[in-house]
Amino acid sequence: MNNWESNLFITDGTIATYQQRENLRQFKLIAEPIAHNILPEITLDALGYNGSTPGPMIVVKQGEWVELEVENRTQEPTSLHVHGLAKPNTQDGRPPIEPTPKINPGESYTYKFQAWQAGTFFYHSTQNFQENLGLVGAFIVLPNNLYTHPVLLPDRDYTMIVQQWEIEQPELGKVFPGTYKPIKYGTKPNYFTINGKCFPETSPLHTAFGERLRLRFINKSSSSHSMHTHGHDFNVVEVDGFTRTGMMDDTISLASGKRIDVEVIANNPGKWPINGTKTFHESNNGHTPGGMITQLIYQE
Amino acid sequence: MNNWESNLFITDGTIATYQQRENLRQFKLIAEPIAHNILPEITLDALGYNGSTPGPMIVVKQGEWVELEVENRTQEPTSLHVHGLAKPNTQDGRPPIEPTPKINPGESYTYKFQAWQAGTFFYHSTQNFQENLGLVGAFIVLPNNLYTHPVLLPDRDYTMIVQQWEIEQPELGKVFPGTYKPIKYGTKPNYFTINGKCFPETSPLHTAFGERLRLRFINKSSSSHSMHTHGHDFNVVEVDGFTRTGMMDDTISLASGKRIDVEVIANNPGKWPINGTKTFHESNNGHTPGGMITQLIYQE
Amino acid sequence: MNNWESNLFITDGTIATYQQRENLRQFKLIAEPIAHNILPEITLDALGYNGSTPGPMIVVKQGEWVELEVENRTQEPTSLHVHGLAKPNTQDGRPPIEPTPKINPGESYTYKFQAWQAGTFFYHSTQNFQENLGLVGAFIVLPNNLYTHPVLLPDRDYTMIVQQWEIEQPELGKVFPGTYKPIKYGTKPNYFTINGKCFPETSPLHTAFGERLRLRFINKSSSSHSMHTHGHDFNVVEVDGFTRTGMMDDTISLASGKRIDVEVIANNPGKWPINGTKTFHESNNGHTPGGMITQLIYQE
Repeated sequence: MNNWESNLFITDGTIATYQQRENLRQFKLIAEPIAHNILPEITLDALGYNGSTPGPMIVVKQGEWVELEVENRTQEPTSLHVHGLAKPNTQDGRPPIEPTPKINPGESYTYKFQAWQAGTFFYHSTQNFQENLGLVGAFIVLPNNLYTHPVLLPDRDYTMIVQQWEIEQPELGKVFPGTYKPIKYGTKPNYFTINGKCFPETSPLHTAFGERLRLRFINKSSSSHSMHTHGHDFNVVEVDGFTRTGMMDDTISLASGKRIDVEVIANNPGKWPINGTKTFHESNNGHTPGGMITQLIYQE
Repeated sequence: MNNWESNLFITDGTIATYQQRENLRQFKLIAEPIAHNILPEITLDALGYNGSTPGPMIVVKQGEWVELEVENRTQEPTSLHVHGLAKPNTQDGRPPIEPTPKINPGESYTYKFQAWQAGTFFYHSTQNFQENLGLVGAFIVLPNNLYTHPVLLPDRDYTMIVQQWEIEQPELGKVFPGTYKPIKYGTKPNYFTINGKCFPETSPLHTAFGERLRLRFINKSSSSHSMHTHGHDFNVVEVDGFTRTGMMDDTISLASGKRIDVEVIANNPGKWPINGTKTFHESNNGHTPGGMITQLIYQE
Repeated sequence: MNNWESNLFITDGTIATYQQRENLRQFKLIAEPIAHNILPEITLDALGYNGSTPGPMIVVKQGEWVELEVENRTQEPTSLHVHGLAKPNTQDGRPPIEPTPKINPGESYTYKFQAWQAGTFFYHSTQNFQENLGLVGAFIVLPNNLYTHPVLLPDRDYTMIVQQWEIEQPELGKVFPGTYKPIKYGTKPNYFTINGKCFPETSPLHTAFGERLRLRFINKSSSSHSMHTHGHDFNVVEVDGFTRTGMMDDTISLASGKRIDVEVIANNPGKWPINGTKTFHESNNGHTPGGMITQLIYQE
């Protein structure tokens, strides 16, 4: 039996709790207004699942069934879609096009489907820009033990969800403290987060010399982000849950809706940035350094 | 002999008529001002070919010669470039750099070249932002029968051209009816179309259980669009007219100038969105749902 | 012995001079304010290395050691990072995260590392948007002779760095002459350059029938650019210094931080645009033609 599940991490986030019933995992997500700090001095009047944005990371094993109960404590109808991972039409969560309900305020709905495909996915609201206000989270399907060779097992497996936020600020170049409701359209983003935090508030990833790391990058934002690991090349091993080969690289273009898994061999000790390369995305409203930067730190 | 040509569709569009003269197809495109509805309440004072934007879909067979007569009924000089599909310098349509004429108002010019490469291409004006006002259309070269194995033939082959438009609207969040001249620079687009229509005006794609579909996505807009099929993974089979292998996916980043052909096996009955994943692009000026969404509907 | 190094070109740019000491090349870069013309009538109050933006193209051979002395003659601290090409933590140039110094005004610092990987890289400042003001340049590592087969040698090898600039202009649609300090945040770029020049000031690339060309596209800007060669398909041979196979194409999406090397066979004589396909990027503040266009011209 492998220990992949115990090697999963999401910095600044949590892994969703669940009830296991034979070959079924039951999760509960509460969509609700939250006060969320992307920086100590910037509080977002946002939406979250179970009190946070991104919501808790859901983890299941390939072949298991999943029950996702979504309770709506927001002011508007919501619905939940797991992006990728084909499901029956009634369980896909995109009304009014699909025959799947809108969940009204105060109501709950339970989605049920099988996690037939291993890979990196994400869940999000499909209603009225609620994704831009925070209703998004990681959804990881680990490969069935039968198909998992020991050489595939990462020593540590980190998930990073990138998000961007547009909030009112009088001008560019500094951070104006306060509590803000994000502008839902998000066409002029000025704050950029990894797992809900702006640098320098992003918690670092840790490793030790010789480890193999898997980094799962997830983007539901409306921009592409070029994610770069300093000091390390990597092997792109999966794109959107499907295997890729022959794709060594040092920078990936992570477009909206995409998930890219890379493997890094920890062979270069130090303290290294992992960051988006678009310069404005490495700032907090134009104040540098900030934004979409985290760190990979080797244990001494 | 295969029937690929009869399996081609372009929702909300037309296929160009032509004269066949032995191994030559002759087409005529009239560039002209048009009134075009992207929604019932939004009329664009746009430019089109033969009365529509995108213009009619041109279809030829690999190895055939093509004559494209372009008549200019607009107020400005124009010129036409088929993007991709290498041609002699005089037939490429990019003056003043190339030795190919600008076509003045009231004049016509005929381009002639051989369609040596099968694949998905597009034609567009290369003058003064006329592409942003509507002068674009699909150009499909079907493989020569000699090279077409029955297993390659799709049951239905749908082309989708994505476009974006910037029009004056007093604020975001709703649709302000009227007739508008698009702002040609297009740096702040607020309406997003598939084959010239915003959701919910986009006509659906149809399929039946067990069919193999080819979807050809074409982007001449100035943004990337992440195109996603709900309920179905797909195989990326061609990029810009060149074969790709080993690229299963569920979301593609369709950058400016790119054409991506995917194959979908219709194995999951229902009514499914096919959409761009950037949230603002799924709205009409910020009103949801809208924009770059269409549907894949299974026959009962 | 191959002559690859003598086949390297950078239009409108220079190749950095150096001191060779056995297996070491020593370069000196002076970061300083410069007056730089992207058009005859538009002067940027920019930053450059050794008097230009992009800075001089650094060329080394795989396996050589590199010493890069950076002298700071600007008003602010700076630091220099060679993007890609993994290096020891102290030589990577990303303070305050890494243990590598900020270089204060009037001071110098020398980075030293081995060019173990052949490929296309770039160097840039990592401080306070200085990249957006001009502090960027190409860094090319040619393959070790031992690994270079004659069939790999291009007849000409051209590097193109794309940049974008945001400057104050009263309105879109024409070029307002003057001297401008670029807005460092660069969120609304209106001028687009290849090797520091806007079309029609971009100097053309030259070729002769039958040659094999390598084109190295480098993007440190904060947008993706879709680079397209008229009249010629190409083979994508390297992405970010790593080999790719089976990737014929005619248009590449060059995201922020990416370097894409393509090979073109010069088989179609004439005068051809090489350009970004986003329409606004082919203009100078909305005046067409302009921006990110250069030409490939065959010798008569």
